[in-house]
Amino acid sequence: MTQTTTLLIQENIGPTLAQWLADRSYSKIAVLTDTNTQRDCYPLLAEVLPPHVTYTVPAGEQHKHLATCQQIWHFLTEQQFDRHGVVLNLGGGVMGDMGGFCAATYKRGVDFVQLPTTLLAQVDASVGGKLGVDFEGYKNHVGVFAQPAAVLIGTDFLRTLPTRELRSGFAEVIKHCLIADAQQWEALRQVPFAQQDWLALVEHSVAIKSGITERDPKEKGERKLLNFGHTVGHAVESWLLAHPDRAILHGEAIAVGMICEGYLSVQQSGLSEADFRTMQTWLLDLYGKVTLSADDIAGIVPLARQDKKNRDGIIRSVLLEAPGRARYDQSIAETAMVEALAYYQTA
Amino acid sequence: MTQTTTLLIQENIGPTLAQWLADRSYSKIAVLTDTNTQRDCYPLLAEVLPPHVTYTVPAGEQHKHLATCQQIWHFLTEQQFDRHGVVLNLGGGVMGDMGGFCAATYKRGVDFVQLPTTLLAQVDASVGGKLGVDFEGYKNHVGVFAQPAAVLIGTDFLRTLPTRELRSGFAEVIKHCLIADAQQWEALRQVPFAQQDWLALVEHSVAIKSGITERDPKEKGERKLLNFGHTVGHAVESWLLAHPDRAILHGEAIAVGMICEGYLSVQQSGLSEADFRTMQTWLLDLYGKVTLSADDIAGIVPLARQDKKNRDGIIRSVLLEAPGRARYDQSIAETAMVEALAYYQTA
Repeated sequence: MTQTTTLLIQENIGPTLAQWLADRSYSKIAVLTDTNTQRDCYPLLAEVLPPHVTYTVPAGEQHKHLATCQQIWHFLTEQQFDRHGVVLNLGGGVMGDMGGFCAATYKRGVDFVQLPTTLLAQVDASVGGKLGVDFEGYKNHVGVFAQPAAVLIGTDFLRTLPTRELRSGFAEVIKHCLIADAQQWEALRQVPFAQQDWLALVEHSVAIKSGITERDPKEKGERKLLNFGHTVGHAVESWLLAHPDRAILHGEAIAVGMICEGYLSVQQSGLSEADFRTMQTWLLDLYGKVTLSADDIAGIVPLARQDKKNRDGIIRSVLLEAPGRARYDQSIAETAMVEALAYYQTA
Repeated sequence: MTQTTTLLIQENIGPTLAQWLADRSYSKIAVLTDTNTQRDCYPLLAEVLPPHVTYTVPAGEQHKHLATCQQIWHFLTEQQFDRHGVVLNLGGGVMGDMGGFCAATYKRGVDFVQLPTTLLAQVDASVGGKLGVDFEGYKNHVGVFAQPAAVLIGTDFLRTLPTRELRSGFAEVIKHCLIADAQQWEALRQVPFAQQDWLALVEHSVAIKSGITERDPKEKGERKLLNFGHTVGHAVESWLLAHPDRAILHGEAIAVGMICEGYLSVQQSGLSEADFRTMQTWLLDLYGKVTLSADDIAGIVPLARQDKKNRDGIIRSVLLEAPGRARYDQSIAETAMVEALAYYQTA
């Protein structure tokens, strides 16, 4: 497997991808898509790609599990795909995480390229080498760390997205500003959502994320900062995913998580009330409010305890000192998390 | 995860394991066993181990698949096992490969310790970080490379093995001599099987294997030498595994493979007829002959084509120049492999 990851961001990534493949001598090229990207994104690449095989999985987080992996491994086996082939994952975070996991474990690992098509995947999932699938309701519970041979980001793909999807990815852009760039956090709020410059924002977010993950690939320290909003957010997302009619998008859950963890930051890590109010108002305005009952909250907290970042069953989270400055490994009492979720309901 | 692997070989490994664990602060210890090692080996360790949980899987290669992994992941999840726990794999190659794979993918990887209990696992599977499970009849088709935190080898465990099992592991000892140590290849044949000094042989084999795998962890070059006997051997093993009443042990299949690949070495890489005769006679004497029909051979060759070492559908193998000296990436025509298997039947 290739050791260094090529990372390129352009509006139209097709010709770059074609050249990148032409410069290498892979024995076979497999393109993995989901039903959405097969319809909307694959046609933008099909003509420039060298000969390849494709496999399409059903779209959606509810298919991000081992049974779908088994279909992908079966397809690769049937194609007599060998260790010198390359897998191209064309899709959002689900496709990248799952297709990457399948490639990283097929015959103990073949090269793979992330071709993220959603804003969420472009600014978050495609960079950093976290791969995996959900297991028994826990997100990314089975997976590995493995670096893609390349991450090739085409912002043209964003035009294929529904607004709600685009707004979901925007939550990770916001997160990157809140943990690492106070100035950009100010700038972001001056531009209406529909007028944001996506190429520039993707470049900014990817620069922050790839800097952090290169310094700390295995999440021993600094990389944990990227989990801001995710302790509560992941648990909310998992809980609602188990109630299919109530499922929300990842970024929508992270917006809930950022408000709750912002609330905890005021109490535990010195975030000012004023900065918290600004955050809360703007995030609620963008994302609306998710209704959570006392029963929901009672179900969400135990899920947060299972989070991969924890140790000895104590919930650990990222809290803000100020916009642009955060601390990791902050212990959160279960009662404090219940309080934060209850506060969110009244906000 | 720990980056350097502790490697220790002793008759009684229990106290060393206890000390190794005492020197670390794992949040939880899980011991994975199979039904055999739970009965025969676990009692040798139970008293010296700190508090831990255990999970037992059914013994045998036929259970080395994703369904068993799902049981193990389920167990770890249920135990609220976090990223700071350690998994101890007490068993043979199946337990080490599968338990290691489960640990290396649970929450994207927790520490694990290999406690190999068979000769085969002690001299082969436990060293080098190859992990995985079988998939649709292909051996180790889904897996990863990941280094254990420690490999702690107790040769006392070998006393719990049936002779046939011990002899199976001996095939890998022989292989290490044939690819890397001509002198030891001579010495080996002077001692009756029942009188071999297992502690010394394990030390010798592990030194060869760990030297090679440290220099080439990802099997880009030199490490391929360790596949001597395995191109044909793995295919024979897979084929017979699919006919349960005919299944043979791994080392028994590797003995077939070493004879066939020795035959090809005479034709393709300069092994002398005399050295080949010596090999063949001694190996047949030790392992007997496996009966393979023309139909069997027709089924075995396509399995060899699927081998992970191949490229572009061409079968690649390791061939000997002389005892103690080997070459990797040698192309084998399918007709030559058929001929070698047919020759074996007449030998």
